[in-house]
Amino acid sequence: MTANPSIDLSELHARVLAACRELAALTEVPGETTRPYLCPTTRGVHAFLRAWADRLGLSTRIDAVGNLRSRREGPTPDSPTLYLGSHIDTVPNAGAYDGILGVLLAYALAEAVRDQALPYALEVLAFSEEEGVRYGVPFIGSRALTGTAGPLLELRDKDGLTVSDAIRAYGLNPDELPDAEIRSESLGYLEFHIEQGPVLQAAGAGVGVVTAIAGQNRVLLDFTGQAAHAGTTPMTHRRDALAAAARFVVAAEERARATPGLVATVGVMQARPGAINIVPGEVHCTLDIRHERDEVRRDALPLLLADAERFAAERGVTVSITPKMEEAATPMDARFQGLLRQAATDLGLDAPDVLSGAGHDAMIMSTRMPAAMLFLRSPNALSHHPDEMVNPEDVEAALRVGLRFLERLAQEARA
Amino acid sequence: MTANPSIDLSELHARVLAACRELAALTEVPGETTRPYLCPTTRGVHAFLRAWADRLGLSTRIDAVGNLRSRREGPTPDSPTLYLGSHIDTVPNAGAYDGILGVLLAYALAEAVRDQALPYALEVLAFSEEEGVRYGVPFIGSRALTGTAGPLLELRDKDGLTVSDAIRAYGLNPDELPDAEIRSESLGYLEFHIEQGPVLQAAGAGVGVVTAIAGQNRVLLDFTGQAAHAGTTPMTHRRDALAAAARFVVAAEERARATPGLVATVGVMQARPGAINIVPGEVHCTLDIRHERDEVRRDALPLLLADAERFAAERGVTVSITPKMEEAATPMDARFQGLLRQAATDLGLDAPDVLSGAGHDAMIMSTRMPAAMLFLRSPNALSHHPDEMVNPEDVEAALRVGLRFLERLAQEARA
Repeated sequence: MTANPSIDLSELHARVLAACRELAALTEVPGETTRPYLCPTTRGVHAFLRAWADRLGLSTRIDAVGNLRSRREGPTPDSPTLYLGSHIDTVPNAGAYDGILGVLLAYALAEAVRDQALPYALEVLAFSEEEGVRYGVPFIGSRALTGTAGPLLELRDKDGLTVSDAIRAYGLNPDELPDAEIRSESLGYLEFHIEQGPVLQAAGAGVGVVTAIAGQNRVLLDFTGQAAHAGTTPMTHRRDALAAAARFVVAAEERARATPGLVATVGVMQARPGAINIVPGEVHCTLDIRHERDEVRRDALPLLLADAERFAAERGVTVSITPKMEEAATPMDARFQGLLRQAATDLGLDAPDVLSGAGHDAMIMSTRMPAAMLFLRSPNALSHHPDEMVNPEDVEAALRVGLRFLERLAQEARA
Repeated sequence: MTANPSIDLSELHARVLAACRELAALTEVPGETTRPYLCPTTRGVHAFLRAWADRLGLSTRIDAVGNLRSRREGPTPDSPTLYLGSHIDTVPNAGAYDGILGVLLAYALAEAVRDQALPYALEVLAFSEEEGVRYGVPFIGSRALTGTAGPLLELRDKDGLTVSDAIRAYGLNPDELPDAEIRSESLGYLEFHIEQGPVLQAAGAGVGVVTAIAGQNRVLLDFTGQAAHAGTTPMTHRRDALAAAARFVVAAEERARATPGLVATVGVMQARPGAINIVPGEVHCTLDIRHERDEVRRDALPLLLADAERFAAERGVTVSITPKMEEAATPMDARFQGLLRQAATDLGLDAPDVLSGAGHDAMIMSTRMPAAMLFLRSPNALSHHPDEMVNPEDVEAALRVGLRFLERLAQEARA
C-alpha cells in the first residue's frame, strides 16, 4: 500500500500551518492568543473546522460540552471508529500550535485519506477544553466522551458561572451530555501534539513516539520557624524557615538528578514576612514530581518529604505537608506505538521514544480505548508562550507518519 | 560613694514600666502601637516627658527635627555634658519598649540623681526618629545633633511630604536645624535599649554591656535562568533559577555557621513565574550579613557572592548582584564600657559583653563623643512585635547600673 498519489502532503502541511496562524488571531485578548473554554471566539474556530469538514463531506456536530466532531462512517454500521484529535482551547497568552495543531493535522489526515477506502470509521475531535484554565480542572472535552464529565458541570469560573451556564450561553444543552459519550466500538485514539520540551530537539528528531504520559504528585509544603531580627539573632538561635526550605530544594534537585527519568520541581517559593533584615519565619512552597513509572515516583515521594522534615527539624522548623494531586502514569497503547514506529521506519524517518511529562487528552481517552500520541519537536522547548514554534518539515513528517499509520492500521484491520 | 538613699529605685522602675505601657497607647493605628516620625500622637509623648522634666526642674526644648531635650546644667558654664537617651518613634505594630524604655530610663536616672551634685551637665534626649519607617532613612533625630541631618530634609514620605514639611506641620522650623547640633563640650552618650535578640536570655543575664554595633552589608541578588515546563523538561535541560538561589541560601547558612559571630540572612526570596508546574526562570533574593569586626565581614562577602555565581553557573543561570548598603562596625567607647562593667560589679550583677546586631542612635552619637549602650534582656527575643517584653527586675537592674555609672563617672571627673 502506498500513499494516495492524488494528495500533495507538502501543500497540505502548508495549509495546516497557515490555519494555525489564522486561528491564533481568534482571541479574547487582542494582541495575544487567549481562548479559554467556550469563549465567544470559539465560534470562529468551530466555523473554520466545520467548513473544512464540509468540503471533505464529513458530518459534523457540536456535542453538549462544545466538542466539534466530524465523522466519516465506516464500510458497515458496526465498523469500529478511529478517533483523531486534540484541543482548541488555550492558556492565556498562548502560542499558535499547542492543541490546535493536532486538531488541524487530524482534519488534514481526513483529507489525505478522502479518496481511500478504509475498513473503519473516522472521527475527528476538536476538544473544547483541555488546559484547565477557566474552571481549574482540565479535560472537560475528552471526559465528556468517556462519560466522566458529569461532576464537572457545577464547577464555577471566576465570574461565578458554572460549566452548565457556559454551555447554555454558547447555545448548547448540558442535559444532552449523555449523548457525548462514546458508546459504539472504538478502534483507538491518535493525537498529534507539540512536545513542549527539549528532548526531540536534543535528539535531532522531528517527531517522536510517546511511550507514556508521566504520573505525577503535587504537594504543598509550609515551613514554620520563627521570624527574627537579622542582626540580633545569632545563627545558633535561628529557626529559619527559608534555610530549611532551601535545603529541601537542593535535596529535591539532587534526588531527581540521581533518579533516571524523574523530574522534581519547586515552582512556588514565598518567604514571609519577606524583608531584607528579617529571618523568614514562614515559607510556602510546592513540589511537583513526575515519572514514567509509578513505582519510581512512589518510591521517591516519601524520601523527598522525609528530606523536608529532616531539614526542617535540624533547624527547629516544622513542615506541614498537603498532598494536592496524584495521577498514575498512563502508558500509551503498545500496538499503536508499534504502528507509529513502523510508519516512521517505512518513511525512513527517525522517531525516537519520548515521554510526555504533561497531561493530554490521550490520557483520558486511554481509559476507553487504545491511545497513542506522536510528538512534534518544540524548537527551543518554548511552549505556553507567544513565541512557541514548530518546524514546517516536522509538520510534514507528522502528516506523512500519520497517513502511513492510517494505512497500516487499515492493512491490519483487513488482515 | 553610694546611691542616694532618698531615691527608691524599686518605685522608680515600676513608674518607668507603667509609663512604657501608657505611652504605647499613643498610636496612629488603634489597637497597635504605631508611631512614625512626628505623627500627631508624638505630641502626647512630648507632653508626658516634658511634665516629668518639669517636675525635676529640668529645662526642656524641642529642637528643629523634633527631638525633645531636657537639660540640667553643670556646676560651671563650661562643664561638659553627659547625654542620656534613646528614641520615641516606633515601627508599625511595635511593642511597648523599643526606644521609649531607654528614654524613660534616662528621665528616671535624672530623677535618681536629682539631689546629687554632679561635675557635669546632663541632657536627656528623646530622639524623634530612629526606625527609618516614614522616610526610609533612619536616625533623623541623632543626625541633627551631629550636624548630618541637612541632606535628609528633602526626603519625601509616601504622601510626598518632605521632612521639612513634616517639621513645619508639627509647628517647628526646619531653618533652625543648625541650633540642634551639639557645639559645647561633650562627656559622652549612654543609651539603654532592649537587646532585641536571644543572647542575654541564653546567658541568664538581665543586662549586658554592648561592645560594638555590627557592621553590615546588604545586597540584592537576581538569578536569571529559563522558565520551563515542570513535566516536559528533563533535569539535564533545566536552567532553574530557584535551584541556584536555594543552593546559595544553604551556602550562606553554612559559611555564617562556620564563621564565629557572623550572621547571614536571606530574608526575601521571590520565584517567578511562581506556578506549581513551571520551573522558575527568575528569582529575586537578598543577603544581609553582619559582624562585629569589619575585616571578618569584608572577607566573607566576596566568598558568599562567589558562591552565588558558582551555583548559578553550574545550572546555566546568571546572577546579577547589586550592593545596597555597607556600614562599618562601630565599637563602643572602651572607657565607658569599663565604667558600665565596674558599675555592674559594684552591684554584684552579671553584665556580659554583647554585640548589637542592629543599628542604634549610639552609632551616630559615637561620631562626636564617647558612646556606650547597656542592653536589657529581651524575653523570647521578641522585638518589633506587639508581644515584645521586658522583665521588671531587668529594668531595675539597668536603673541601678545606670545610677552607679553616673556616680563612677562623677568620681572620675572629680579625680
